[in-house]
Amino acid sequence: MKAEILSIGTELLVGSILNTNARFLSQELAFRGVDVYHQHTVGDNVSRLREAIDAGLGRADIVICSGGLGPTEDDVTMEAAALALGVPRLRSVETVRRIRKRLRQARLPVGRLSLNQTLAPKGATLFQNQFGTAPGIFCKTQRGGDTKYLILLPGPPKELEPMFIHQAWPILSKSCGETAALHLRSIKISGLTETQVAEKVGPLLKRRPPVTCGIYAKIGVVELKIMSKAKTLERAKKAAKPVETFICRVFGQRVFGFDEDTLPSSVLKLLRKKKLSLSLAESCTGGLASHLLTSTPGISEFFKGSLVAYSNQVKNKILGVSAETLKKHGAVSAPCAYEMALAAQKIFQSSIGLSITGIAGPGGGSTQKPVGLVYIALSKNKQVKVTRHFFSGSRDRIQQKAALSAIDLLRLSLLK
Amino acid sequence: MKAEILSIGTELLVGSILNTNARFLSQELAFRGVDVYHQHTVGDNVSRLREAIDAGLGRADIVICSGGLGPTEDDVTMEAAALALGVPRLRSVETVRRIRKRLRQARLPVGRLSLNQTLAPKGATLFQNQFGTAPGIFCKTQRGGDTKYLILLPGPPKELEPMFIHQAWPILSKSCGETAALHLRSIKISGLTETQVAEKVGPLLKRRPPVTCGIYAKIGVVELKIMSKAKTLERAKKAAKPVETFICRVFGQRVFGFDEDTLPSSVLKLLRKKKLSLSLAESCTGGLASHLLTSTPGISEFFKGSLVAYSNQVKNKILGVSAETLKKHGAVSAPCAYEMALAAQKIFQSSIGLSITGIAGPGGGSTQKPVGLVYIALSKNKQVKVTRHFFSGSRDRIQQKAALSAIDLLRLSLLK
Repeated sequence: MKAEILSIGTELLVGSILNTNARFLSQELAFRGVDVYHQHTVGDNVSRLREAIDAGLGRADIVICSGGLGPTEDDVTMEAAALALGVPRLRSVETVRRIRKRLRQARLPVGRLSLNQTLAPKGATLFQNQFGTAPGIFCKTQRGGDTKYLILLPGPPKELEPMFIHQAWPILSKSCGETAALHLRSIKISGLTETQVAEKVGPLLKRRPPVTCGIYAKIGVVELKIMSKAKTLERAKKAAKPVETFICRVFGQRVFGFDEDTLPSSVLKLLRKKKLSLSLAESCTGGLASHLLTSTPGISEFFKGSLVAYSNQVKNKILGVSAETLKKHGAVSAPCAYEMALAAQKIFQSSIGLSITGIAGPGGGSTQKPVGLVYIALSKNKQVKVTRHFFSGSRDRIQQKAALSAIDLLRLSLLK
Repeated sequence: MKAEILSIGTELLVGSILNTNARFLSQELAFRGVDVYHQHTVGDNVSRLREAIDAGLGRADIVICSGGLGPTEDDVTMEAAALALGVPRLRSVETVRRIRKRLRQARLPVGRLSLNQTLAPKGATLFQNQFGTAPGIFCKTQRGGDTKYLILLPGPPKELEPMFIHQAWPILSKSCGETAALHLRSIKISGLTETQVAEKVGPLLKRRPPVTCGIYAKIGVVELKIMSKAKTLERAKKAAKPVETFICRVFGQRVFGFDEDTLPSSVLKLLRKKKLSLSLAESCTGGLASHLLTSTPGISEFFKGSLVAYSNQVKNKILGVSAETLKKHGAVSAPCAYEMALAAQKIFQSSIGLSITGIAGPGGGSTQKPVGLVYIALSKNKQVKVTRHFFSGSRDRIQQKAALSAIDLLRLSLLK
């Protein structure tokens, strides 16, 4: 099985945005054993787009397009697809209903332009979009006696990714007569870099099918993905199990979760299990740690609140960090982090107080206290633990790393 | 002038790495007034690569390839290029000397394989690589009576970027007699959807060169990008000006900035100009509004702090929202938002207090108070203004929209 990836958008051709969709789709396809020999990017132009779809259907079994399904007149992917398939476009009553409902919920006018999104090539199977208005489609067609498949997905990654995984892949694999069952298992690791993880499990990453393993890194998290193919899902799961057990043994408490788990959702599980409440005092992360924790539904039961104490005045007057500490050690210091964690715990009357203070940059650094220096403190059971960190990168990366490290320290403390 | 970008590497086709080179080259070419209609990615395979070079030389005036110039046997770009050009490969004495010197300096063995890098198509102009062993090349060829240009650049961005700017572009622009300059101007709009913006400036989006306009949307922000081409940068800027003036007149205060501006950075400029300080009380956004504001360097001078009051207990005990308000109207209500904004202003002793309370979901909604209902209040000069919003989408999107709307309301209040 061969697939071709066709990315659509003038913003890609002028370099306004990075093509992360092509990478995502390539990764997911490689993982599922589908070869990709060509990735292609064209602009929002009907004739070039139609040509590209035709060329793709000539070379590969499957063409997956992303982008150009928006509501405006320069979104022409549906039109080009219908031309390439040689069929007319029909209005989908279901899509009209869904978009109207979505717009009404958002109190937005149901304009003329938006109905552009309700047309799809005749015979297409529609994917309804959970996270936006643009629908995706799946079509079957013939080229030189062979059956070929064309899939159109919306451009925004938040819409494309779940639509590919939950809607496009199931129908595609079924249509292609892919009978092997596929089991995917993701193991999530914190506190190590991609290189450190790769060094510990090197040979795993070179495994050949039916059980393969891939490595993926984001800020603060490294993911090891096991892919296992077999005749039944039961067998695929069974074949993957020893690899999972091995990984968990190698990384121990560094493994914070599986599949859909995130660092915050793992923390929530532990807070629930131990019936503990939490509060924060943040300085250099400016509310990011709170935001990450509260992005998890259900956290409100355990998360009392957070004080973003950006200035020394607020640290002193509201949190009650002593003027002496601020004068003698400065706001970016172990004693200040210590007092902040205790203060959060006291003010919010929570079981745990967590604090972060540091220098996110780009300004404000010195030889003694460089940009990236961060202190994190955790107060629990009348004990306060302070750790010192040096993070590198831009302001944004330093804030991300500091917030995720604080959440990970919290997680490790809850395992005891 | 039309160029095509051809990225070479199996690691791109399996999604191991992001294609940042295609973006870099597209951006640099757009800036220089060269149109890119196709980006293409193929693996390290001689026949597919040769076909792709041929197709590119057929469609465009210039084909720029990146990658596949390394020392190993799977680096076949030079070979494919020579085949596409119909010329033999010759050894470059200069390159042999440079690679030998480089390897000696790095205390590396001068192996047989590395000499793979010393062959180049006959007639090629060589670019010597300052940061690696792979040389780049520039070739002229003929297709159907037209002169075409083929450029090969090494894959590592640190080698490709300076080689394109300092070696490839100068020889290319001279050979093509290219003189047009390109001016890019981005106008940023808040508070409207992509569809609403497109409806107001429909004809602009259909403009033909030399001055064109594109539309790009993210959560809470719509960007209109003007691209203008002329003989000189001065003239390109002058030609874009009337379009910019028109857009600014149509959208008025909805235009929050240009080019690199963000909503938070625009707010920072206004706070600085008016010498006003700010504090927040957040509920459903859980610290996100604070985080977005503090992602802007320099905000610490004006941003006093934020209280993330997630529970009713914290709203009452720490913020001082009256028990009566919480009981009678609930935490998601105009009176609660009103009291929260005033409380933030008082506690942090800031000129402005901004508050957000709502239901981010997925749980917690009711018929009277559905998921997505959000109240935002702003307290300034002894006046408090409360607004009600209905946001749609996932928990994450509702939080994003609520935080950005609050920041935008703050911005609008600072314009008065």
